[in-house]
Amino acid sequence: MGQDVSLWTTPAPDALRVTPETTVAALDTRSTPGFTGDKKAGELLLVERGAVLSALQEKLYANGRSGDTRSVLLVLQGMDTSGKGGIVRHVIGQVDPQGVDHASFGVPTAEEKAHHYLWRIKNALPKGGQMGVFDRSHYEEVLVVRVHNLVPAEVWSTRYDEINAFEKELADSGTTIVKCAMFVSLDEQKARLTERLERPDKYWKFNPNDIDERLLWPAYQEAYQAVLDKTSTEHAPWHVIPADRKWFSRLAITELLIDALERLQLDWPPPDFDIEHEKQRLARA
Amino acid sequence: MGQDVSLWTTPAPDALRVTPETTVAALDTRSTPGFTGDKKAGELLLVERGAVLSALQEKLYANGRSGDTRSVLLVLQGMDTSGKGGIVRHVIGQVDPQGVDHASFGVPTAEEKAHHYLWRIKNALPKGGQMGVFDRSHYEEVLVVRVHNLVPAEVWSTRYDEINAFEKELADSGTTIVKCAMFVSLDEQKARLTERLERPDKYWKFNPNDIDERLLWPAYQEAYQAVLDKTSTEHAPWHVIPADRKWFSRLAITELLIDALERLQLDWPPPDFDIEHEKQRLARA
Repeated sequence: MGQDVSLWTTPAPDALRVTPETTVAALDTRSTPGFTGDKKAGELLLVERGAVLSALQEKLYANGRSGDTRSVLLVLQGMDTSGKGGIVRHVIGQVDPQGVDHASFGVPTAEEKAHHYLWRIKNALPKGGQMGVFDRSHYEEVLVVRVHNLVPAEVWSTRYDEINAFEKELADSGTTIVKCAMFVSLDEQKARLTERLERPDKYWKFNPNDIDERLLWPAYQEAYQAVLDKTSTEHAPWHVIPADRKWFSRLAITELLIDALERLQLDWPPPDFDIEHEKQRLARA
Repeated sequence: MGQDVSLWTTPAPDALRVTPETTVAALDTRSTPGFTGDKKAGELLLVERGAVLSALQEKLYANGRSGDTRSVLLVLQGMDTSGKGGIVRHVIGQVDPQGVDHASFGVPTAEEKAHHYLWRIKNALPKGGQMGVFDRSHYEEVLVVRVHNLVPAEVWSTRYDEINAFEKELADSGTTIVKCAMFVSLDEQKARLTERLERPDKYWKFNPNDIDERLLWPAYQEAYQAVLDKTSTEHAPWHVIPADRKWFSRLAITELLIDALERLQLDWPPPDFDIEHEKQRLARA
């Protein structure tokens, strides 16, 4: 027991938070910012920190059950194969499913298209006490939509401010937003797509469209850069997650969630009943 | 590795399925039907079988993503403290949260009351490829509703047939329903409620109403007996889970879910694209 948390020379939130200097095209996707341990050390530490995350999440859930309206929302963005699904399985999978609100956002349905683009997002927000997870999100509206010109530039270009305002409102109403942009290299993506084409147990994860999107890599890098430049705010900062090493991205996001929960300074909710009276009733029951 | 599955002398589905002789009032809630191992053996086996469950669930999810509309629905019923929440955490917590649709049914809201009692149930059914979990369910309509006379007997008495018909339709449309009724003894419930009144980290789980319900134990036993007698059908049989030993109820329900998934005879979905063509495209991309 007692894996070395001090392998983090800089706390994950500080090491990973976007700065004005963050440059998507120059990112080392194999790096492990702030963390000096290797894969083995990272995997061992994940088990231990997963238990910490789980304990904190139980407190969040307990408070939610007692009327606390605060929640945590993890927003995952990244190109295909960047490991968003793995984060859900291996990071969110560490906590009680009762307290998890998971939503993934694909191509909008006809009904969704008939509404404002934030409609389906607002419908999927976590309730008080819940840990929400968005696998893709409203940011698709300034990523895939921008890259493919699905709406005119005059339209998508207004969305950055709109998203900032939406997230401000959300943060003000008690949701701690943890935004993670996961980045793999072109080479690593090719290796992961190749695996999906070679293993029958992975075919289902492959979509020919993934290759079409891959061909638009520079346009996506530009779109991600704009997202980081325009929507990393004090109330909802972006974190850049180098994702070539899966063990690192999982450990890093676990740390970001622990940090978010710790900042809520949760305690066990006080009883809303008279303990002694209930003990007496129970003794007789 | 290699925990002894043969500690099950009778497979869990057979050992636990309700029979015409099942008598709620005579149940030994500390028993471990079909299983000869002790707590230590059961806990070790759970880890191993949890991995089997997780692998099967991934196949269900993969097929769902490929258009398969089949799903699995775990229905949990039981008195307060019978361990329903623990099943969600420790059994469902073994699988990928992406593939879990969790719903818990408390006192109906005003909106829910304005609809047929199956409305909120139908809204929460698992989609294709998902593993649904109901923490309490439509059975509350013939349990709490019956015990408290919330509607006249002429009304609730028609619901058994209505529920059977609903579940038949659900099963015919591809949902494998796994119904588990969890039973603790009066003594065990008192011990668990006492713990909730003594530990500040457990207060949030206590509700004074739990004691009121406890005082109606015989009426609930009668109501549960009627549920088992009238709604254990070929398409959706009930399983009786003795729940004084948490390790046993968790292992037992893991086995029931494994059995349900195995009966679907899932394979990895075939590719819906031309593998060689995609490999060539990827090589050039």
